[in-house]
Amino acid sequence: MPRFALKIEYDGRPFSGWQRQADHPSVQEAVERALRRLDPDAPAIAAAGRTDAGVHAFWQVAHCDLARDWDPFRLSDALNHHLKPDPVAIRDAARVSGRFHARFSAVERRYLYRVIVRRSPLAMERGHVWRVPHSLSVDFMTEAAAHLEGRHDFTTFRAALCQAKSPVKTLDEVRIFSVDSHAGEEIQFFFRARSFLHHQVRGMVGTLEKAGSGKWPPKAVADALAAADRSRCGPVAPPDGLHLIGVSYPDDPFAA
Amino acid sequence: MPRFALKIEYDGRPFSGWQRQADHPSVQEAVERALRRLDPDAPAIAAAGRTDAGVHAFWQVAHCDLARDWDPFRLSDALNHHLKPDPVAIRDAARVSGRFHARFSAVERRYLYRVIVRRSPLAMERGHVWRVPHSLSVDFMTEAAAHLEGRHDFTTFRAALCQAKSPVKTLDEVRIFSVDSHAGEEIQFFFRARSFLHHQVRGMVGTLEKAGSGKWPPKAVADALAAADRSRCGPVAPPDGLHLIGVSYPDDPFAA
Repeated sequence: MPRFALKIEYDGRPFSGWQRQADHPSVQEAVERALRRLDPDAPAIAAAGRTDAGVHAFWQVAHCDLARDWDPFRLSDALNHHLKPDPVAIRDAARVSGRFHARFSAVERRYLYRVIVRRSPLAMERGHVWRVPHSLSVDFMTEAAAHLEGRHDFTTFRAALCQAKSPVKTLDEVRIFSVDSHAGEEIQFFFRARSFLHHQVRGMVGTLEKAGSGKWPPKAVADALAAADRSRCGPVAPPDGLHLIGVSYPDDPFAA
Repeated sequence: MPRFALKIEYDGRPFSGWQRQADHPSVQEAVERALRRLDPDAPAIAAAGRTDAGVHAFWQVAHCDLARDWDPFRLSDALNHHLKPDPVAIRDAARVSGRFHARFSAVERRYLYRVIVRRSPLAMERGHVWRVPHSLSVDFMTEAAAHLEGRHDFTTFRAALCQAKSPVKTLDEVRIFSVDSHAGEEIQFFFRARSFLHHQVRGMVGTLEKAGSGKWPPKAVADALAAADRSRCGPVAPPDGLHLIGVSYPDDPFAA
């Protein structure tokens, strides 16, 4: 069967996450339902990142196998037609070899976590950012984040339910900066790694927030990491601010 | 009665616009309903910009009169409590003199119009931008927009229902630029004027889009303006991309 890679955007708010679950709407189910309007026997699909409930994606990648060899443009259009009115869009589709696997072939994932510093509730960006009602020091958080870069045992930032074989991961990069937003001061956190543990980004953001607000000295984040103890993690930041913004493969399936 | 200025943010999607209407939800009605939970006799409120259905605001200003002299912080918090779950937030409140009028005292309004250039439907930014499926030249649009700046008869860009006394307005500034967005190429249009005619910004954006896509030479926008003829306006751009982002007064009521 011909295999296709799909670049997918979704608003995570109405979904219980990427992964199909009985009795709860998922992004995977929405995409599979659209695929089966084109090919009733289309098998289950796999994605690069199994995002949690309420987590968004501007650039998720999944692959699917179809009986017919579709023109990729027409496949995107047909899927987008059947995805309506769900807030899920196929941004691109590409024919790939049978050896391509959206999850196992991926060599890098990139996440953006958005915070807005503001006292009042959110109207425009509700569900798309974490609202923090007190000021945060980007300098303190940058100092703390430097301790997280590199190869470490990330047990501190790992969810109890995490299925990864090992808690040892390499965090290639964390960048934090302040941007102007019409909604208030926005702080953006970028994370880049081959792969992440379940809840790792949200755990790191919740912990960095402690440094940013001055409740913890930046060095305490290094100590929490070194402890390899989940009880030393700051509060896990809410899903609202988290966005999967890119996945890389040895050969980019979407290179024009 | 003590008078208060309110800085208000709202997502325009669920509303038929700012202005109260029988049988249709409006932002004005939502704010008045919250005010009457605090003061059952609170009179109707007035706003700087009577935004249309589906138009958003990061910074609308309205004023209200209340029987009691509230602490502005507590007034914001109480209103935000009663506004739930509507996507409307009071970002700030300030005690103002009885001579302050949110609409008639305003000396400048600022609007942002957001476009995303992209072929596929939108998931994350749906309802918050105008999606244009073909490329747009910022240079052509900037050249065309220069003809709109200054004092002109803007009849071409005026809605049939516009209630302004005169179609002559001064457009102080139009700026257009391309910004990176995770959703695709984003083009932002900024407009600044003392006041605008009904549909003026959306009419100008719809007309500038003609220049940006190469369908009209930039000079045709100047000709359309000079004709002072509504039939010469490009298609009125959809409300989704329009955001009221600021209102200025001779004395800023929210100056800390």
